[in-house]
Order: sequence, then C-alpha cells, then structure tokens
Amino acid sequence: MPGAVGGRSGAALALTMGDPAGVGLELTITAWQRRVSEGLAPFAYFGSAEAIADRAAALGQVIDIVRIASPSEAAGVFGRALPVIDMALPAPAVAGVADPSNGAVVIASIEKAVAAVAAGEAAAVVTNPIAKSVLYRAGFAHPGHTEFLASLARAHYPGSAADPVMMIASDALNVVPLTIHIPLAEVPAAISSEMIERTLRIMAASLSREFGFAHPRIAVAGLNPHAGEDGSIGLEDRDVIAPVIAKLAAEGLHVTGPHAADTLFHPAARATYDAVLAMYHDQALIPVKTLAFDTGVNVTLGLPFVRTSPDHGTAFDIAGKGRASASSLIAALKLAQRMSERRSAAAANAPL
Amino acid sequence: MPGAVGGRSGAALALTMGDPAGVGLELTITAWQRRVSEGLAPFAYFGSAEAIADRAAALGQVIDIVRIASPSEAAGVFGRALPVIDMALPAPAVAGVADPSNGAVVIASIEKAVAAVAAGEAAAVVTNPIAKSVLYRAGFAHPGHTEFLASLARAHYPGSAADPVMMIASDALNVVPLTIHIPLAEVPAAISSEMIERTLRIMAASLSREFGFAHPRIAVAGLNPHAGEDGSIGLEDRDVIAPVIAKLAAEGLHVTGPHAADTLFHPAARATYDAVLAMYHDQALIPVKTLAFDTGVNVTLGLPFVRTSPDHGTAFDIAGKGRASASSLIAALKLAQRMSERRSAAAANAPL
Repeated sequence: MPGAVGGRSGAALALTMGDPAGVGLELTITAWQRRVSEGLAPFAYFGSAEAIADRAAALGQVIDIVRIASPSEAAGVFGRALPVIDMALPAPAVAGVADPSNGAVVIASIEKAVAAVAAGEAAAVVTNPIAKSVLYRAGFAHPGHTEFLASLARAHYPGSAADPVMMIASDALNVVPLTIHIPLAEVPAAISSEMIERTLRIMAASLSREFGFAHPRIAVAGLNPHAGEDGSIGLEDRDVIAPVIAKLAAEGLHVTGPHAADTLFHPAARATYDAVLAMYHDQALIPVKTLAFDTGVNVTLGLPFVRTSPDHGTAFDIAGKGRASASSLIAALKLAQRMSERRSAAAANAPL
Repeated sequence: MPGAVGGRSGAALALTMGDPAGVGLELTITAWQRRVSEGLAPFAYFGSAEAIADRAAALGQVIDIVRIASPSEAAGVFGRALPVIDMALPAPAVAGVADPSNGAVVIASIEKAVAAVAAGEAAAVVTNPIAKSVLYRAGFAHPGHTEFLASLARAHYPGSAADPVMMIASDALNVVPLTIHIPLAEVPAAISSEMIERTLRIMAASLSREFGFAHPRIAVAGLNPHAGEDGSIGLEDRDVIAPVIAKLAAEGLHVTGPHAADTLFHPAARATYDAVLAMYHDQALIPVKTLAFDTGVNVTLGLPFVRTSPDHGTAFDIAGKGRASASSLIAALKLAQRMSERRSAAAANAPL
C-alpha cells in the first residue's frame, strides 16, 4: 500500500519553520505553551531558535528553548522547553516583512523535517505556512508546498507512490477539492474520469489507514447545479463523474453521487458520509470554512508519510501582533499524531 | 421606487396551492395548525378545499376549512378555520402522482393570488412549490415560477419595473445567486458588469425598503478561487466584478468585494454584511443550505409586490407521508408578513 512506510509512531512530530516573517513563529510559541491543556504530543521545531526567542520577547511571552541535535531528543525536553533543531537565518526575521534571503533556510527546514521522518527519527511532518512568491525569488522551483513535499518523498522513498491529494479535515467535515487554484472557467475541462478515480482510491486508502474509517463512505459532489439533473444542466455529472462512481461502487467501495452540492453539507447529510470529493476550490472550501473556520487542517494524502498543515497562510498583515489564532496549527499537530499512530498500527498489522 | 406600490399591510397573505400532488397541501395544513405557536398572520389559501380536506384526513389531521370569497374575509376566519378561496380540481389530487390535467388550476391559483394583491385585497404572495415539467405539459409557457410572476406583475402594474432577483433569506445569511440553473461551464461568460450592477441596485433597494437595513451592506463574492488573486487565477474578478463595486461604492452604496468566497461565510465574516451577491448557484446555495437547511426562504426581489416561497420543491417522493418539514413554509409566511409591513411603512413615509 503506498505510504505505509513513513514516519515512526512514538517519535516526535517534525514542525517546520515556515516563513519566519509570518505568523508561524508565534503560533508555534502558542502551541507549545498550550501543550498540557491541549494534550499535544512532543514536536521538534526545525527553524531559528533566535527568531523564536525574539518573537516571544516582542510579544511578552515567556518560553524556554532547548537546542537539540535530533528529533529523538524532543520528547525528553518538550515538557519544560521548546525543542529546536536550530537553523540560523542569514537575515533578521522581521514580522510582516518577508526577506527572500531567508528563503534557503525556509526550504532547508522542510527538507530536514522530511529527512528526519524518512530516517525514522520523527513521526510526521507538520508544516508552518510559507509564501511561495518569496521563495520563488529564492530560487524555489516547485508550484507549491505540496509538490515540493512530493518531490522530497520520491527522493527519500524510491519506488513509493507520491501522488499528493489535498484534504481539508475538521470535526465537521473532511473534503477534497479535485481541482484547486485554477480559474473557474477551466474547471469543467480540467476534471476527468481518470483523475476522479485516482483521487477516490487515494482518499479511500487514507481514510481507512489513517483516519480510522474501516469502510470509508465517500460522497462525490456534482459539478453543475443539482448535479446536472441527468444532463439537463450540463453533461459532466452524467458523462464524466457518474461512470467512475458506478465503477468503484461495483468494486465494493462506498462511493456515492454525484450529489447536488448545495444539499450535501447540512448536518443530516454530513451524517451519511465520512468525506466528500468536491470538483473545485470553492465547492470544497466554502462548506468547510463555513463550518470550521479556525480548526480546519490541511492534510496531504497520497504521500509515503503523514503531512498536515494549518489551513491558512503566512498572514503577514497580522504577523507579530499576537492576534493570529493557533487553533488550526494545534489541530494540525493533533491530527498528525493521530494519523501517524493509526498508520503505524496499520503497518504493524499488515501481512508481510 | 420600483415596487413600492403592491400589497396592503394588514390584509391577509395570499398562499397559492402549488402542485396538489406535492407537499404543499400538507405543509399548508401544518402551518395553519401552528398559527398560534408560530404567531402567524392570517393567510388565505388559493386552492382546492376538497384536496386540502382529503390530505388532512389521509394524514389523520383535524382541520376546519371555511370557504371565503375574498382574502379580506380571511382575518375573521383564520383563528378557527383555514380560509380557502376554493378552486376545484378536474382530477383527484393524488399525493406523489402529478396530473397535468390539474395544471390549469395550479396556474390559476398563482394568477388569482397576484390579482388579489394587486387589488389591495391581500398583502403579499406566498407560493407553494410547483413542478415545471408538469405545467409544461399543461401549456405553461414560462421558464419558471418567478418569470411567470414577473409577467403577471407587468400586467397588473403597467409601467412598474418587474426585474426579478432571487434571494435566499435566513436568519444566518441572505444570499443572491447572480446566475442560477445553468451549467457551471457557462457561468464565467454569463456574468456581466451590467447584470451585477442591476442586481446590486435591486438588492440595495429591497434590503433597505423591506428588510429594515437603512444602509444595507452587500458583500460580493469573487468568481475564482481567492477572488482571482488580482488576475493571477482568472480575470473576471478584476475586470468584470471589481469595476462595478468601485462604481457603486463611489455612489455611496455599501458594496464591498470581490471577496474570496471560501472565507465569506463563517460567523465573523457574516457579521460584516447584510447580504451577499454570489456569482453562481452552488456558491450561494452551499453556504445557506449548510447554515439554514430547513428555514431558508426563497424571496423574489424586484417585483412590485412581496413574494416569498419555501426553499424546496414539490418533494413528490415524500408527499402525503407527513414527513415534510413545514419550517421553510412557515418562515416564508413570516417573512412575507414582515416585508409587506415594512414596505407599507416605507410607502407611507415616502415623499409625495
């Protein structure tokens, strides 16, 4: 099974720095401070100890920091101090003012976190937000965070599938957007039966292996109003989406739809499935951000290791002001821990 | 001001029959039974007294029915019996089995209700659900309910604007879909600056006149993910939507956007506006049905009289089973009453 190989349950989580001008630093401080009340598992921070200390001081926060050499030391430190794999920045981390000259360290933080998981020293990767436009100026050559992680996955896990699928997970709703940051006009031509099938298989495998749904129920949203009303409002639902659902259902997967998207997200409807596959960005993100604005977690399915991330960006406009909510990062840390525990248990129980 | 002319506050509401094979009959019975607990204003039912009595008997409901000749008699009857402007059906009303031969009476019910409002005998029109496909077989020549009402409005109120705009109203959210039942692929080309401007002006006028918002705040959702990120994910937000908002804002209207649609519907965001203009069906209907599934009301703005409707269809599959929720019809009756009172007050206060 793709991805049943990565991370080690019981090890600490690897938390990346993200852009040091963004809110990642202060959210990390807040998450560590709430480690007891939130019941957080130990995490190691891959970033600048100085930048963390400076941001804490600027916000009047008291935090003890201990530099560690390996995430395996994190658990022994975590109760009394934030364990940091220290990575010095060439330029000062100024809240709200991104500096491309720090880009190489932002990238190296992600590389080292993945390497630690691949080496069995960490359980999963949790990423703080990056700013792609800043990294591009530092020579970053990937479309985004997730594609970069997939490329690292392929390097560290040769032969393993690394076909990333973004899911937003929350207590209220788990939802995957089939297409993401493309113009709405391009969505109808961008979706294909093959893409839907591949995504549904990755969702089903991950929901079973890492989310505790023995037989995950996946509802597929239609593209058109009322899922096209059998072809009278657009043909994609009938001709592109429905045949894949029929095929996978015939195999025994619990996949239903295409459903009218507008009536798919009220409480009674949500009780009938474990996750939704939506066709485009707003169809997925409107309901989950309406229901769980602060607590949604961005999860990458289809990688050979567990990766979660808070479901927001660097928020340069409020960085350094102590106003950013740590709820999503805390939820991301908790989910990464649960997912890596389930993945380890599944791997332990898998036939040789 | 267009539409400040219709209906008479203090008069009863005119409730149409809708398709007598659908859930309209039983919802009407339930609404009347809850008239005291829900604090409903009197309404007159324009439809078959026999069909209502039969449906009540089939469901084991006790209801007194009084035939009246004019809605002006409804208030005197409403406390003890359902007041009915009786309209005999040529064929029996069988729950769940629509009969096109009853279509002419379905249509006549709507015509008589509008005529009663235009004559000052009723305060507003509340419509039970119809089935367009059934009416087409009875010779109905309009695209839908709303277009038919607009045509009746033009006949009864010569010279008055009748430019219908559908809004879904609820306690949680008021939202207008700019485009409705068209394939998603056609949406980007269907929206225009002129259409957005006309719709926003109708929304602003109605929210002020009938919804009690002295200076209504309208948020406009972007078409593309993240409202296009200044043209990097589609051009419509920057080139079609933003200029209209700038124009109307310069006139002093409280119109903002285009906003990223995914972050527009959580509680803190909803506190910043009174209504949203969305670009397409699911962008509007997903959030409102997620937040207010049973209690959303379909309101037609831009007519010379008040018209509301429950936000669901005929539900032939559950008609006659006593399972349909009357929440939306009750909400539609309450909203029509409030809107007609505010409209009358606005008309009374308007300069001569």
